[in-house]
Amino acid sequence: MAENVIAADKLEARLVANHFNAWMGLHIVSYTEDGIEIGMKWREEMISNPRLRITHGGIIGALIDTAADFAIAAKLGMPVPTVDLRVDYHRAAEPGDLVAKGRVVRLGGTNAVAEASVHDARDRLIASGRGVYFSAAAKS
Amino acid sequence: MAENVIAADKLEARLVANHFNAWMGLHIVSYTEDGIEIGMKWREEMISNPRLRITHGGIIGALIDTAADFAIAAKLGMPVPTVDLRVDYHRAAEPGDLVAKGRVVRLGGTNAVAEASVHDARDRLIASGRGVYFSAAAKS
Amino acid sequence: MAENVIAADKLEARLVANHFNAWMGLHIVSYTEDGIEIGMKWREEMISNPRLRITHGGIIGALIDTAADFAIAAKLGMPVPTVDLRVDYHRAAEPGDLVAKGRVVRLGGTNAVAEASVHDARDRLIASGRGVYFSAAAKS
Amino acid sequence: MAENVIAADKLEARLVANHFNAWMGLHIVSYTEDGIEIGMKWREEMISNPRLRITHGGIIGALIDTAADFAIAAKLGMPVPTVDLRVDYHRAAEPGDLVAKGRVVRLGGTNAVAEASVHDARDRLIASGRGVYFSAAAKS
Repeated sequence: MAENVIAADKLEARLVANHFNAWMGLHIVSYTEDGIEIGMKWREEMISNPRLRITHGGIIGALIDTAADFAIAAKLGMPVPTVDLRVDYHRAAEPGDLVAKGRVVRLGGTNAVAEASVHDARDRLIASGRGVYFSAAAKS
Repeated sequence: MAENVIAADKLEARLVANHFNAWMGLHIVSYTEDGIEIGMKWREEMISNPRLRITHGGIIGALIDTAADFAIAAKLGMPVPTVDLRVDYHRAAEPGDLVAKGRVVRLGGTNAVAEASVHDARDRLIASGRGVYFSAAAKS
Repeated sequence: MAENVIAADKLEARLVANHFNAWMGLHIVSYTEDGIEIGMKWREEMISNPRLRITHGGIIGALIDTAADFAIAAKLGMPVPTVDLRVDYHRAAEPGDLVAKGRVVRLGGTNAVAEASVHDARDRLIASGRGVYFSAAAKS
Repeated sequence: MAENVIAADKLEARLVANHFNAWMGLHIVSYTEDGIEIGMKWREEMISNPRLRITHGGIIGALIDTAADFAIAAKLGMPVPTVDLRVDYHRAAEPGDLVAKGRVVRLGGTNAVAEASVHDARDRLIASGRGVYFSAAAKS
């Protein structure tokens, strides 16, 4: 696997320059050659069903997408466009912060594949998924 | 295909009781036996890359998920949990409102499949996708 | 949408030059600007569970993949590599020939998206799905 | 994670009772609490493009599906129906035997998620993917 080509603080600056990422309170929790962990700060507006107060699946999907994309960004120096994304929902997320763990599966010159999983504060698996990313966009 | 079992105003009330759906400004644009169209009100916080000002893929994914789920909700009387979701991103979305069109593919007793597409104000195809939904949850 | 750029007989020759497609007895049933229908000849070796005698999901997936790819081939002149594929299984297929209907969703210069559905002789929906295809491979 | 509830020889008997699995020459290569490895015997009919002689994507998809399903079968005592499947193709497979490694991601009472990867004789990653399986079918 390729080495990381960007420092964690530079990558985090890129992460939160993105408005919606900033709204979700995203920040880098861990950053190694093997992958990246991105934390999310829960907020009231993320609730779906108001009675069950579980976190909206769209937020979970955005987390999977971002963690997978930034696992690739570590290797390419910048995030690249998502071609497609698959998310599997394993367990409803109760109110609270979440952590997404991203990892590169295959770094191709045109398309790359990365996967990610989302965990709650008790490290229970909330969701997992994978996407294809347009790695060629980072060449310019 | 099964008939719609809930009135549009009741379904919309359900739609916006969901906090994140309300944050996205979701509302029903069209509601027939063949499917549902859900409009989204664009807001500044939905931007991803601040230079390109395109709408975050997580928002697009949430729209696909919600339109597919509410196409099923029309037939079951309520939205049900997402089992998994796939989203294909076709074109970057410029700032502006979006519309998601949802349609049931197969309504099973345990799992159902629905698909949706997202279009911009000029009716350009932004994204499309499909998901599996846990239809058995509506039985209770 | 782009126009078809290859004649049906030439496309079918390409289809069956592929050994596994020939083994599945694939042939073009319908070919229009809007999509392609590919028939499959059932054979005993396609059975999965010998008691239920249903057709193996791998065969169904190969059909979805081929119909989606050849819907793109109609527009590009040749099939192109599959980047990824999603298949939803709706109903077990009893022994018998099947038909897969493919349609292009979005024809991009690097990646294209196409979808397909599989139907039995009584036109019941057996499976449906979609994939991303590396359209740039057809440029050379 | 649940423990394996069936012996390897019994599971392999189940594997090859399936006609298409037998046609693909499937057999169990490794069987532990953490997952299953299933080998495939290459045959001429598996070729797609006759010039490039690469293995058909439908065969690769069938391998991903089977390895994921049998990782679940180890925990439930029998394979269960595939609800949906996603396959990412990373590298064209040259003529030769392949091995698929399957692992359970989440074992739910109604639906389970498992993932698998396909490797060639030089242990290069050919494809990877994941699916949802109808685990409730094993209860009877």
